[in-house]
Amino acid sequence: MSLVVIGSVAYDAIETPHGKRERTLGGACTYIALSASYFTQTAIVAVVGEDFAPEDRVLLERRDVDLEGLEQVPGKTFFWSGVYSADMNDRTTLQTDLNVFAEFQPKLPASYVKRPYLFLGNIQPDLQLGVQQQMKTLRFTGGDTMNYWISQFRDDLLATIRHWDFLLINDSEARMLAGEHNLRRAAEKILAFGPNTLVIKRGEYGAMLFRKDTLFMVPGYLLEDVFDPTGAGDSFAGGFVGYLAQQGFDLRNGNFDFRELHRAVIYGSVMGSFCCEQFGVERFRDLTRKDIDARFEEFRRFTAF
Amino acid sequence: MSLVVIGSVAYDAIETPHGKRERTLGGACTYIALSASYFTQTAIVAVVGEDFAPEDRVLLERRDVDLEGLEQVPGKTFFWSGVYSADMNDRTTLQTDLNVFAEFQPKLPASYVKRPYLFLGNIQPDLQLGVQQQMKTLRFTGGDTMNYWISQFRDDLLATIRHWDFLLINDSEARMLAGEHNLRRAAEKILAFGPNTLVIKRGEYGAMLFRKDTLFMVPGYLLEDVFDPTGAGDSFAGGFVGYLAQQGFDLRNGNFDFRELHRAVIYGSVMGSFCCEQFGVERFRDLTRKDIDARFEEFRRFTAF
Repeated sequence: MSLVVIGSVAYDAIETPHGKRERTLGGACTYIALSASYFTQTAIVAVVGEDFAPEDRVLLERRDVDLEGLEQVPGKTFFWSGVYSADMNDRTTLQTDLNVFAEFQPKLPASYVKRPYLFLGNIQPDLQLGVQQQMKTLRFTGGDTMNYWISQFRDDLLATIRHWDFLLINDSEARMLAGEHNLRRAAEKILAFGPNTLVIKRGEYGAMLFRKDTLFMVPGYLLEDVFDPTGAGDSFAGGFVGYLAQQGFDLRNGNFDFRELHRAVIYGSVMGSFCCEQFGVERFRDLTRKDIDARFEEFRRFTAF
Repeated sequence: MSLVVIGSVAYDAIETPHGKRERTLGGACTYIALSASYFTQTAIVAVVGEDFAPEDRVLLERRDVDLEGLEQVPGKTFFWSGVYSADMNDRTTLQTDLNVFAEFQPKLPASYVKRPYLFLGNIQPDLQLGVQQQMKTLRFTGGDTMNYWISQFRDDLLATIRHWDFLLINDSEARMLAGEHNLRRAAEKILAFGPNTLVIKRGEYGAMLFRKDTLFMVPGYLLEDVFDPTGAGDSFAGGFVGYLAQQGFDLRNGNFDFRELHRAVIYGSVMGSFCCEQFGVERFRDLTRKDIDARFEEFRRFTAF
């Protein structure tokens, strides 16, 4: 069933030990939508500038992403550049030009407001809350955030995630949000903030899902070559939320099979791993659902005992 | 079936954020043997000094560990002291007094030489090889090593592990041994050195098993409190090798169920997790096989999808 994704669409300059790209399509919303599009009909709400290239629009359209909510305004598209360390576990941001994203006020097209699934990418918590309030018939809402909102807009963030069914963040963000290093205790605290489900991404070390009634852990997929980790966490989010939407999952009704949530974490891991195999969004140009399901089965083989 | 373990028996002074101990039983051989003793009859070959306390002998005897190969000689027992960082991911060695361990020449009692399973704890590679050559009817041999032997005694180490069925090391050691950061490629290189099975321990991030014909990964058990990680890797080794010995596993004969190897990794993870719950070997005073099997099932629940 149909999913709405809010967040950034950007151009990135990326350098990894495997090479560099001067300008490649990026942004959380882009990765989430491309990834989710393999599972469910996906619509985006985002803003780009006059420099947004027709071929990038085509890439999204080819994946059947609904672009009615993609606003194009005078100015330049959000631009980010960064360089990764030799082991790719660290990256340094060289430049962040918010450009038209600085004034982003998400506008939901009328055709979006009755869609059942909403994923709020990492933007200002107030804006995330505003979007959620416009949606009429949600079966679940979840989202992402980042260190900046956790430290500088903590009250707004808590007021926002209180209404979410799930929160999907990385381990350092979880520790910061909970003020607790131990992830098991951090997760308990965060679940008390409102979301019934917490997914913690750990990069190459995999991911974990916490609820009051279940805990699930998966190791990271072991790639032979990580070309570029940019977007892997957002691709994870797209796989996770896309699979739940595909299954018509209702997180507000406790009456479901936990294994489906676990499988959603696996699909998230699968999508994150594919993303790293090429620069930027390039892997999504030829990736097929068959490839995805084959890797899902590979996860089953290498974790079964 | 019966397992022989070679390695260090020591006294440790340990400080973690949860407290400190001035002198507590330690050493790789101690942890491996205590852990393996829950699965199979275990015999040790080690050396201690005159200061070795009767109650520490009793602890091992209560777990039915065969101490015929535990030599007591004039001088002091190996002593190590260390302090852990706040997040316990790093530790600093404050003192290492090899004492009687400096002259350790493993002597196999006659009653040991026909036992089927041998685990060579981290000692000089030449000594490991010498012990293996004395064993008459091995169904498998495996062992551990450390950075020092990898960098300073590389040729000896390669000549030694060439005869092993499995090598069990941590991720930084695997990278160093292979000269390769990517673990998938590092594992391929190490398997070409001789062992048919490689187990890589990743501490809180779990463990991986590599063979030409299978790959298995498990996330780390998520403890609410890590009191003291000392000995966790050795307890993992004891669980892994102990379970294989219990099952009468023959790693030299390809005709087996891979799932048994996977389960051995889970039992290793289970034993490593219990070890962290109290200081030193304290957790082994009251741990039961029932506790172990319950945690094994917990691993199944939180990794199944």
